Amino acid sequence: MATIRKRRGRENRLEKPVSLDRSLRYRQLRHPFAPQGFFTEDAIINIHNMALKVLEELGMKILLDEARKIFKTGGAIVNDTDLMVRMGREMVEAALKTAPKSIPIMAINPDRCQQFELGTLMFAPGGGCPNTTNLERGRRPGCYADFEETVKLHQSFDVIHQLGPSAEPQDITPELRHYATMNAQMTLSDKPMFLYSRGQKQVEQAFEMIRIGFNLSDAEFAAGTWVSTVVNTNSPRMLDIPMGQGIMDFARAGQLCIITPFCLAGAMAPITVEGALVLQHAEALAGITLSQLTKPGAPVAYGGFGSNVDMKSGAPAFGTPEQVKMTLGTGQLARFIDLPWRSAGGSASNVADMQAGLENNMAMWATVMAQATVVKHSAGWLEGGLTFGYEKFINDIEALQSFAELCQPPEDSENALAWSALEQVDPGGHFFDTGQTMRRYKDAFYQPLVADLSNFGAWSEAGAQTSTERAYTVWKDVLANYRLPDNSAEIGERLKPYIKAETDAGGAPPVA
Amino acid sequence: MATIRKRRGRENRLEKPVSLDRSLRYRQLRHPFAPQGFFTEDAIINIHNMALKVLEELGMKILLDEARKIFKTGGAIVNDTDLMVRMGREMVEAALKTAPKSIPIMAINPDRCQQFELGTLMFAPGGGCPNTTNLERGRRPGCYADFEETVKLHQSFDVIHQLGPSAEPQDITPELRHYATMNAQMTLSDKPMFLYSRGQKQVEQAFEMIRIGFNLSDAEFAAGTWVSTVVNTNSPRMLDIPMGQGIMDFARAGQLCIITPFCLAGAMAPITVEGALVLQHAEALAGITLSQLTKPGAPVAYGGFGSNVDMKSGAPAFGTPEQVKMTLGTGQLARFIDLPWRSAGGSASNVADMQAGLENNMAMWATVMAQATVVKHSAGWLEGGLTFGYEKFINDIEALQSFAELCQPPEDSENALAWSALEQVDPGGHFFDTGQTMRRYKDAFYQPLVADLSNFGAWSEAGAQTSTERAYTVWKDVLANYRLPDNSAEIGERLKPYIKAETDAGGAPPVA
Repeated sequence: MATIRKRRGRENRLEKPVSLDRSLRYRQLRHPFAPQGFFTEDAIINIHNMALKVLEELGMKILLDEARKIFKTGGAIVNDTDLMVRMGREMVEAALKTAPKSIPIMAINPDRCQQFELGTLMFAPGGGCPNTTNLERGRRPGCYADFEETVKLHQSFDVIHQLGPSAEPQDITPELRHYATMNAQMTLSDKPMFLYSRGQKQVEQAFEMIRIGFNLSDAEFAAGTWVSTVVNTNSPRMLDIPMGQGIMDFARAGQLCIITPFCLAGAMAPITVEGALVLQHAEALAGITLSQLTKPGAPVAYGGFGSNVDMKSGAPAFGTPEQVKMTLGTGQLARFIDLPWRSAGGSASNVADMQAGLENNMAMWATVMAQATVVKHSAGWLEGGLTFGYEKFINDIEALQSFAELCQPPEDSENALAWSALEQVDPGGHFFDTGQTMRRYKDAFYQPLVADLSNFGAWSEAGAQTSTERAYTVWKDVLANYRLPDNSAEIGERLKPYIKAETDAGGAPPVA
Repeated sequence: MATIRKRRGRENRLEKPVSLDRSLRYRQLRHPFAPQGFFTEDAIINIHNMALKVLEELGMKILLDEARKIFKTGGAIVNDTDLMVRMGREMVEAALKTAPKSIPIMAINPDRCQQFELGTLMFAPGGGCPNTTNLERGRRPGCYADFEETVKLHQSFDVIHQLGPSAEPQDITPELRHYATMNAQMTLSDKPMFLYSRGQKQVEQAFEMIRIGFNLSDAEFAAGTWVSTVVNTNSPRMLDIPMGQGIMDFARAGQLCIITPFCLAGAMAPITVEGALVLQHAEALAGITLSQLTKPGAPVAYGGFGSNVDMKSGAPAFGTPEQVKMTLGTGQLARFIDLPWRSAGGSASNVADMQAGLENNMAMWATVMAQATVVKHSAGWLEGGLTFGYEKFINDIEALQSFAELCQPPEDSENALAWSALEQVDPGGHFFDTGQTMRRYKDAFYQPLVADLSNFGAWSEAGAQTSTERAYTVWKDVLANYRLPDNSAEIGERLKPYIKAETDAGGAPPVA
């Protein structure tokens, strides 16, 4: 597989025109900090070994017959009555050897391509949300109009590196829904795409749409990941039919499958962070093993999305100290098995308030400290993912852009040390009109998207709006100024006959 | 000086009663992560050397005659006409050798004492605010009632390690104000205290109040830092009369003086982060040098509080990528000169909204990444410090408590790995009633202070309150349940005659 250029060189960066194009620097990011952990190295080895013991002695319940067959052929002990699969550590270790360490993520716009490997950093928006909310229309079940709008919002910010299913279009019948979501992603955006694994037929039709719409040969399609999916295990220790099928279908097609147990400590996982990590690690390793047994070298990623529940109510909590610890531990485990990995932001808040901000920022800093390769749900999640909030999305983008700014290397030049400016300004004076300031003032600093820096008087006179209220204007403006990507019409034209024919043929019902 | 115990041992921690007392673990914190930087080591050396060149060739304007005399005696080139002091690097290096690396921060309650050294972590509340705001009384000029209330709020959260002047009591005449603020801190709290340097007479009277109120001998008073101050230089390159006096008075009394240039890049400092750091570093080194020339070994700390301004309006910005970079660079410089140091949170927002949360959290994570020893303005700051917000304080406390949770070491035990629980629960089951969960559910997770984890329906029925609105109830409850610390009455009785006599004598007007 081809390696996509990793980073703009410094010279290139300095030569770029600035102001309007500052966000172009946000496209291919690499982590700026050293990876941080929470557990000792010994503790990580213990978690890894305990996970192997779980797979060996307790096993996973694998609902799909074909998946159990693949495990059996690979050497697992399989019981077709209780559907349990017990796999030895040598099988897991073999899978970890063939799983690729660097995966090209493709997009129709070459400038949106990304390399997915330890050290790179991608942000994906809040996804999987059945509802949307904004200050214009309130909270409502997601519909296709919302899906289109959210894709347009994702497309409009360079710091969003991959599309996500922010709004579930429930007004489209399930057997036709994948046509609509793929069509929208392919014509309204030029970024890497996402697809749910809801049965083999839907998945294969979506792959076919990519080949047709982007006019790709089979070889071109297989040369990199044009679309990725997330496979959630049913914690504890179960893999259901569409998820098992998804692992196999994506592996065979050379498209990225991210195995993400969703382990909430105290509910579907043990109450200790260490124990929840054991379960998460075991389930992720089982999924990775199935992928590599299906096709050695297939693109697959380690995933972790863990937090805790409120033990009084059982409600999932996000952005908690426990989520931070799980994220840091997951990064340590991913580096231990030397695979790129997926993490997540998140928020339990019901509204775009300080709670929502704190939760997402705690979670996001954890992913940056832990060096996640891709961070899902990094913008817009509310109610633990039950709702995608437009105004929260805009406020979260401010955080993501701040992280992207930190990914830019320091200038590290003699000029930056500012001797001539320091020499010019008298004690107690100011630097507003030094030559250095005059040369740099237009682009010296990050320009806020929604933060208001005016003083209390000016802010009050302007209506005393919160950043949530201001964010309403921001997303309205973004949508008003949205422009279709190049080749949108052409791609749409190529897809039309395929969609019509498959729709007429009854579509592809999702598999449960 | 005595070294205060640094951390509870693991055994001790596990034996402690939990639930209500969880926050006792938040008292003496040590940083959990490795310190992170933003600049290369070479860049840090260049900044340090350029700062020395600034002090040597450009110099500092020192308004106070006695301070210039001390510099002159120490070997500086002093011009008593233009008040400029040029100091060679050997003077600065000598000061860095005598400045203490570990300073005991004292409190009347021994369990509130802290060691101030690289690696420890203290949070101080938003301070220096002329106004207060809350949902009950709105925004108003700070008064003594607000000062008392905010001290009670600081006292009520173990994660606040040092008092700060959150509300300026403007209803008390300036020459008597220090009696009121010291009396309130000493009788309403048992935590380490803060004092403004507003002239020698006020400072010495405050020291005397501590000796009288806490019944300390001169030796006991001088054995550690009972009260600390912050000296802000007048950037660029000026030290005014009360600030210069403060450095000398605190040094002579063995009380901690934190030298903090407030360098806003593009305004009172160069527009580049590196250049702003050069200026900050030069000014801080000059202050440290004055402290050590006054009394070698006197407790003094390196301070940095830098951000940028909005170049369109000149308004200060907080929590920006530039503030994060400056904080990380400041930590690198502090470690380079091997001194404990002060950093800051901050927020420019006019209201406790998502902007306020993002700004403070970005700034706070930077201080944690940079391993600041004390973080000022960590809770409650609004409008760049012009207002202390009660509801913002409560929401920020949630963040500080989350950091304090991350300072607790992982359990790292066989039990935490949860084998018996994993074995008990069938695939697709849940862990709610395993023995492990039942034994631990009461204290497994951090309990939110203001975050609401209920679902959208329940939250809506309960009034659909934002976390800012809920925070109102929280601080009202905290104040309603506030209890005076031990010995409060006794301390107050001892202070009364002194305050009366000095008040009758006309007080001590502040020096400008």
